[in-house]
Parts: sequence; C-alpha cells; structure tokens
Amino acid sequence: MVTALLLAAGAHAEHGRILLALAFVLVGAKLFGSLVERLGQPTVLGELAFGVLLGNAALLGGPSMAPLEASETFAILAEFGAILLLFEVGLESTPRDMMAVGIPATVVALVGVVAPMALGFGVGRLMLPGESWMAHAFLGAMLAATSVGITARVLQEARAIRTPSARIILGAAVIDDVLGLVVLAIIAGVIRAAGEGTALGVSGILVIVLKALGFLVGAILIGSFLSPRLFRHALALRSTGVVQALALAFCFGLAWLAAKAGLAPIVGAFAAGLVMEDVHFEDHLKRGEKPLHESLHALTGLFVPVFFVRMGLLVHVENFVKPGVIGFAVLITVAAMIGKWACGLVTPRGVSGRTVGLGMMPRGEVGLIFAGIGATLVLDGKPVVSPETYAAAVFMVVVTTMATPPLLLWSLRRDGGV
Amino acid sequence: MVTALLLAAGAHAEHGRILLALAFVLVGAKLFGSLVERLGQPTVLGELAFGVLLGNAALLGGPSMAPLEASETFAILAEFGAILLLFEVGLESTPRDMMAVGIPATVVALVGVVAPMALGFGVGRLMLPGESWMAHAFLGAMLAATSVGITARVLQEARAIRTPSARIILGAAVIDDVLGLVVLAIIAGVIRAAGEGTALGVSGILVIVLKALGFLVGAILIGSFLSPRLFRHALALRSTGVVQALALAFCFGLAWLAAKAGLAPIVGAFAAGLVMEDVHFEDHLKRGEKPLHESLHALTGLFVPVFFVRMGLLVHVENFVKPGVIGFAVLITVAAMIGKWACGLVTPRGVSGRTVGLGMMPRGEVGLIFAGIGATLVLDGKPVVSPETYAAAVFMVVVTTMATPPLLLWSLRRDGGV
Repeated sequence: MVTALLLAAGAHAEHGRILLALAFVLVGAKLFGSLVERLGQPTVLGELAFGVLLGNAALLGGPSMAPLEASETFAILAEFGAILLLFEVGLESTPRDMMAVGIPATVVALVGVVAPMALGFGVGRLMLPGESWMAHAFLGAMLAATSVGITARVLQEARAIRTPSARIILGAAVIDDVLGLVVLAIIAGVIRAAGEGTALGVSGILVIVLKALGFLVGAILIGSFLSPRLFRHALALRSTGVVQALALAFCFGLAWLAAKAGLAPIVGAFAAGLVMEDVHFEDHLKRGEKPLHESLHALTGLFVPVFFVRMGLLVHVENFVKPGVIGFAVLITVAAMIGKWACGLVTPRGVSGRTVGLGMMPRGEVGLIFAGIGATLVLDGKPVVSPETYAAAVFMVVVTTMATPPLLLWSLRRDGGV
Repeated sequence: MVTALLLAAGAHAEHGRILLALAFVLVGAKLFGSLVERLGQPTVLGELAFGVLLGNAALLGGPSMAPLEASETFAILAEFGAILLLFEVGLESTPRDMMAVGIPATVVALVGVVAPMALGFGVGRLMLPGESWMAHAFLGAMLAATSVGITARVLQEARAIRTPSARIILGAAVIDDVLGLVVLAIIAGVIRAAGEGTALGVSGILVIVLKALGFLVGAILIGSFLSPRLFRHALALRSTGVVQALALAFCFGLAWLAAKAGLAPIVGAFAAGLVMEDVHFEDHLKRGEKPLHESLHALTGLFVPVFFVRMGLLVHVENFVKPGVIGFAVLITVAAMIGKWACGLVTPRGVSGRTVGLGMMPRGEVGLIFAGIGATLVLDGKPVVSPETYAAAVFMVVVTTMATPPLLLWSLRRDGGV
C-alpha cells in the first residue's frame, strides 16, 4: 500500500532521499558557513565540516548516511556543483589571460606532479618494502592530483580570482589535472597489463596523452571560434532565457566532451567558461536578457554546497583513527604537502610562492577517486591499494583539503590583496 | 583502460549521459519553444514536441533513448522541474487567495474526479465486458488524475495566473491530485486484498484519507506559522544567499513530506509556495539579498524544460498506432475529455467554465504513473491494465496533454484576460 502510494507520487525511496538531503544540505551549509564566517574562515570550510558531521552522525548515534553516499543522483548533483563552480571561475578569465601565465603555470604544474610522485614513491619504498615498484608508483600518483574546486572557491570568496597568483594556480591546477589523469591512466594501464602478463605498449600511452591534449587545445581553439557565432545566431530565437540556456548547454557539452577524452568534466567546464565572454551575448542583454553571472549565481547557490557537503560526507573518521594506519597516514600527508609546497619554489617574481603552493595543496575528491581506482586494481593477487593504504590516502585527502581554506585565506591576506 | 579513465574522471556512463542530455534538452527546448512561439503557441508545447521527437528518434534511424528514459537521475531532475514550477506558481498566491475560491474549487475538483471515473467505468463495462468491476474501476481512476504542471505553465506564460479562473483551476487541481491519489490507493488496495483473498478494511482506507488530508491542512496551517519566523531568525545568518537557501529547503522539505503522506511531491511544493510570502523576507532584501523570484527563475529555466521534454520522451508512438488499440484509445480519450469538461459546468458566475474545463484536462505524467501501477497489479492471474489498455491510456495522456496548451491559450484569449 505504502509502496503503491509512494510510487503513485513518483517518489520512491531515492526521490524522497534526494529531496530531504537537499533541504538538509541547504540549511546545514548556511548554518555552518555562517558560523565559520564569524570565525574569519571561508564558508567552504563550514560546508566541509557539516558534511563530515553528517557523514559520521552514525558514530554519535545518528542515522546512517550510507544510502545517500551510495546515491548516484546525489553524486551527479554534487558534480553539477563542481562543474558550475569551475564554469563560473572560468568566466572570470579569458584564454588570453591564461596564455599570459601559460609558461609559469606549466612549470608549476610539472613540479606539482613530479615532486609529490617522487616523494610518494619514496614513502612507498620505505614503508611498504614488500610491494612491487608499480604499487609505489601508484602511491606517488595518488599524491599528484590537485582538486581545484576548493582553491577556486576560496579565491572566489576572497575576491582574489583575477590576481596573477590565482591565474597561475588555476592554470596550473587544470594542467595538473590533465597530467595527473594521464599519469594515473598510464600506471593503471601498466598494472593491468602486468596482471595479464603483458606490457602496455607505447601506442596505448600515446593515445591517452593525445586525447587529453587534443581536448584541451581543441576546446579552447574551436570554442573561441564557436561561442560568439553561437550567440549571434541565437539572436533569431525570441524566447527569454536564451543566454542562460545556451551558456549552460555549452558548459555541459564541453564537460561531457572532457569526460569522453578521459579528463575530469570540470576541466571541460573551466574551458567553456574561459572561451565564453560577456561581449558574445551583449546584444542579448540589450534585449533584456539577464546577465549570465546572475542566473549562474542561483544555480551555484544550490549545487556548490552539495559538492562540498558530499565531499565531507565521504570522510569516514573511524577508518584512519587506528594505531597501525596513523603513522603511515601522517607520512604520506607530509609528502603530499611538501610535494605541492615545492610548486611555490618555481613561481615567477611578483607572485606569492606561498599562496601558489597552498593553492595547489587540496586533493579533494580527485584523491579519493584515485585511491578508489587503486583499490580495484589487482597485482600479484592483492589490491594495489590495501585497505590500510586507502585509509591513509583518505587521511591525506582530508588534511590537505580541510587545511587549505584557512591557510590559503591567511596567505592571501598576507599577500595584501584581500 | 577507458573504464579507468572515465571512472577517474568521475564520469562513468550515467554522469556523461546526464550532461549530454541536459545540453540537448536546453538547446532543443529553446529551438522548439521559439518555433511554436512564432506560431502563437505556448513554449511548453514545443518542449513536449521536442521530447516526442527525441523519444521516437530510433523510429527514424536515430539513437535509442531507452537508457535516458530509464535513468533515475534524469527522472529526479525532471521532478525538480515540476517541483520548482509548482513552488513558483504557489508563490503567486496566498492561502487567503485560495480560501476565497475554496468552495468552488472543491466542487470543480469533485466533479473532475467523479465524472471521468464514471465515464471510464462505463467504457470499461462496454469494451472489456470480460473483466471484473475492479478492473473497470481502475480504468476510471486512471482518467481522474489531473497534471497541474502543464496548465500552470500555460497560465504562467499567458500571465493569467492571478485570475479567478486560474485560482480555481490551481486549487481544484491540487484537491483533485489529492482525491485522485486517494482513489488510486484505495482501488489498488482493494485489488491487492482481492488477490490475497481478503478485503481492504475500512481502517486501511481511513489511514490513506487521513494522511493525505492531514498533510494538506497541516502544511498550510503550520507552514503559515513557521515561514515568517524562519526568515526572521535567519537574519542572524550573515552569509549571502540565505533567502534562496531557506526557501528552497522549505520547498524541498514540504515536497518530501507530501511524498511521505502518500501525495505527489508537487502538492507539497505548491503548499510551500502558498504559505511563503515576500513580506517574510523583506528585511533580507533590504540587506541586499536577491528577490526570490529572480533566483528561482534561473533554476526553473534549467529544470522545467527537463520535465516537459522528459514527458514527451516517454511517449512511444509505435505502441498506440495499432488497429486493435486505436478505437479503444479514442473512446477513453473522449471519456477523459468529457469528464473534465464537465468541471466547467459547475463554475461560479463570472468564471469561464470553458477555461476551467480545459485547464483541468491534461493528465500528463500522473496519468502515466497511474497506468504504470495498474500494469503491475494482478487480478485473476493477469494484469489489471493489459498492454492494450496501457497503450490506450498513453494515447489518452498524450492527447489531453498536447491538446491543452493551444486550447487553453485560445480560451484565455477569448476570455479577454490575455
């Protein structure tokens, strides 16, 4: 009976769960965000903290969040948040702005991938001497990922997104994302091939690299050409809301293409934001259309907190507060922090190395995804990432992610730009 | 390899599918909406038509939309659209406005449930003489559902939402929704009990009725009390976006509660909109918060087209264009139209009966859900709703849904209000 009613209402368990979760996330994010703001901290820290509290409520006798964590729809809504945030951030720059920081950003990104990988590999050899070099390399790759969402949000909240440091961080984080995913794909390929008793060919590696690079260059070149033409032709459409619809379609379309090229959808969303400029839809605004940033604001207001609360939700405190794990966890966390801090050593004059190093630090959900893939890869009959290593990786992700907002805000304030 | 990459990108098939679907829906809805607008038709008709085209693309050699149709996430995004639309519509009225049309709306709703049920029962006896009275009653119940989304959208597009006819239609549609779901739950209960060789007790029926009524009365009374207090206390929160976050949390929360009470989530969203008034967050606006309707506009711009395109997507043309089905289909469609047209006979003086009758006509997704439940109910070893009856029900839903926007707009224009 109840089933029939809920079905009749088009609201079986998953529909209800998502509605309730959104209501909770909206209220909780505002309460916690407001609280940390009073303490001079960025709102995003409050959202992360609310997520951690929610995710570990069962430890305090509250309800289990396991069904919400496992919900694919909730994951997609969270991803919308990340996509819309990076699109919004991309809108604040043009390809020319990014080109201007192209060389220093690439250098920073290379250091930001190589240094953590080397340190992670070293920690692996030291602490897990029984494992093969491939397991050590995978550990290194896990430390290489940068999650640009947290940093982008802090820079945005501090109104520092147009500073040279911010541009270098964003450019480097995007390049880093590309490099990190390429490295991951190569190592995972090598391990899989080893599991099958073969070796990953050079052509296989080349395909991965070319797809990723092809997407980035293609998206920016073709996108810059298409965007103004798209909006000009759209003047023929008389409906209202054309700018918002086209801009979002462009953003979602490039995010989809990025995923097809083996990259994170947020890389595509950022590229879409980069190539789209206010001047492209000037004529629409004259006709009374709402400016894009106004309509985006409402969407990010709903979905961005979902992303950060969900990121907190995925943290299982009980997993890494164990004597056997905590030492290893601290060691790889230090390696992860020093590795990214090294980025600050190669910034050009006039750009705060401290800010860049801190901005590159958070691993966020990218680190969790890397660790999750490692747990499914099998080498010599056991997973490349053991449960203990996984717990340590989660600890590293939590610390680098939660520590970044306050540290980065502090650094931006010391830079004097805020 | 590809799997690893897509996973690494957080974008396995479902994530990619949803991103691509949204990009398509946004562009397609604007193109088709703009096209029908030039023909003097409401935009929503273009969105429905685009959905039908997309859903039947496979017939023309295009790709199959089966995975998108089956996607739970896409269904939830579409439901967001309906929820946000009804919330927005509810915001344009107050409980007092609705009370003022309470008696005529209730009379219209009662006629709108009883007349189609009686006609549907009659068609069942005539065309399916071999079936039991319960199957005939279920056929009647299928014709009773009103889908307020289409009508609300047309009224909104025509800027007629504050007219007396509009208030009667909206009030009646909500009451009708409640009555329809209660009737469905009772009949489904009777059929299930018969299948088990027992009978549904009076207490079982009472619980269904009381939960539904309890929700409606409770939501409006408690909501009216809570809403101003909620926003007043929220003045303590210094973050931006508080109005939007709280209003959406209130809307999603009531939608969830409605589902828990066995009603459609959109009934809860409408109630949330009714009780919330601009004056409740006046002080927030003075602090520089965006007015609620502005932020809602961006959200409805994204999700409402998803709802209508998806509704078109679910129409499988090949199922009811069959000689054995079409006669029966036409007959129940006529019964469904006459049944709701009867609503127009009981409207008070000064309110256009034609407009009210047409406004109550669309069955939309509610009719599809009813038919779907019937297909899962078993009586004497066969489904209560046979594949042929299901196809006929889909035809009825399509015709009443697609015919409403142009007819209602024509009627509103003749009323002279537009």
